Amino acid sequence: MLKSSSSDFREEQISSQLAFEGRLLKVYLDQVKLPDGKLALREYVAHPGGVVIIPLLENGDLVLERQYRYPLSQDFYELPAGKINPNEDPLLCAQRELLEETGYIAANWFYLATLHPCISYSNEKLVYYLAKELTFKGACLDDGENLETFVLTLKKSLEWIRTGKITDTKTISGIFWLEKLLRGDW
Amino acid sequence: MLKSSSSDFREEQISSQLAFEGRLLKVYLDQVKLPDGKLALREYVAHPGGVVIIPLLENGDLVLERQYRYPLSQDFYELPAGKINPNEDPLLCAQRELLEETGYIAANWFYLATLHPCISYSNEKLVYYLAKELTFKGACLDDGENLETFVLTLKKSLEWIRTGKITDTKTISGIFWLEKLLRGDW
Repeated sequence: MLKSSSSDFREEQISSQLAFEGRLLKVYLDQVKLPDGKLALREYVAHPGGVVIIPLLENGDLVLERQYRYPLSQDFYELPAGKINPNEDPLLCAQRELLEETGYIAANWFYLATLHPCISYSNEKLVYYLAKELTFKGACLDDGENLETFVLTLKKSLEWIRTGKITDTKTISGIFWLEKLLRGDW
Repeated sequence: MLKSSSSDFREEQISSQLAFEGRLLKVYLDQVKLPDGKLALREYVAHPGGVVIIPLLENGDLVLERQYRYPLSQDFYELPAGKINPNEDPLLCAQRELLEETGYIAANWFYLATLHPCISYSNEKLVYYLAKELTFKGACLDDGENLETFVLTLKKSLEWIRTGKITDTKTISGIFWLEKLLRGDW
């Protein structure tokens, strides 16, 4: 077994350069000092962070979305999610996104976790909330945002994960998390 | 409920431009035609794809890694994983990465799923394998790859997820998947 002592792998920032600023994505190229003193370059996407909402209806069903994702040229079945605006509180962002995308407001919000979807090349964090006591008010999609909301049982959602119909890891992590919460072993 | 008819949200590529080519990351800026005929721009990271390995020891423990991830400036506890080389078979990649990073070979490989960690701005896919009947041969890390391998029970891994010590979604999805497999409800 390779179990060694608990080494310090920290890398110290020497310089940081905005290498690319696109319409959406910012890429930084940093020079760092490795634990052994050597210099190295690190390249990564700077992301404002996002929220993921698990909207749970009274009867235990989930509100999900179908959305076309151009990078992979296919539809995905997803939990509602969205990017955090500058200085926006994550909970307020979650409330805004849930209403905008699905048309629901929730009387009961419960923070679940903060996860990291893409640690090797992005600093993105995702803040997860469970949203309960839902009331439908009517959606208000951003211009050019093409998505469709639908309702699915938790059991069916798990089946869609098992059979490969749901493959988005933010959604899979959230649905598994919810199942454990509801089963009481969490 | 917003449940409408099953609309076609496909976006047709009009042009594609390599907007940034860094040391690691490639960013494309594509012009697309939306379902309503309007034109829009789509920006995303092009990724070669990766593998995630769940190395399961005879006694049911997992082989995990601690690795410093510069984009988030912290250590992460992760399943072994790695990028697929050009034209490399994902299974061979998984076998290579498991040996390089942890020093283990496995006699029994089982494909689990292909998931997508970052669908809004990357085309990355992650191919998951369960690796069993492990034999330790000795690790062989790439130059500059600083990581530490350790062994953890599945129960403890789940506790680390629940308490926020494991926050990497590729690892969380994999550990939850394994738990369901082992419990027989999958």
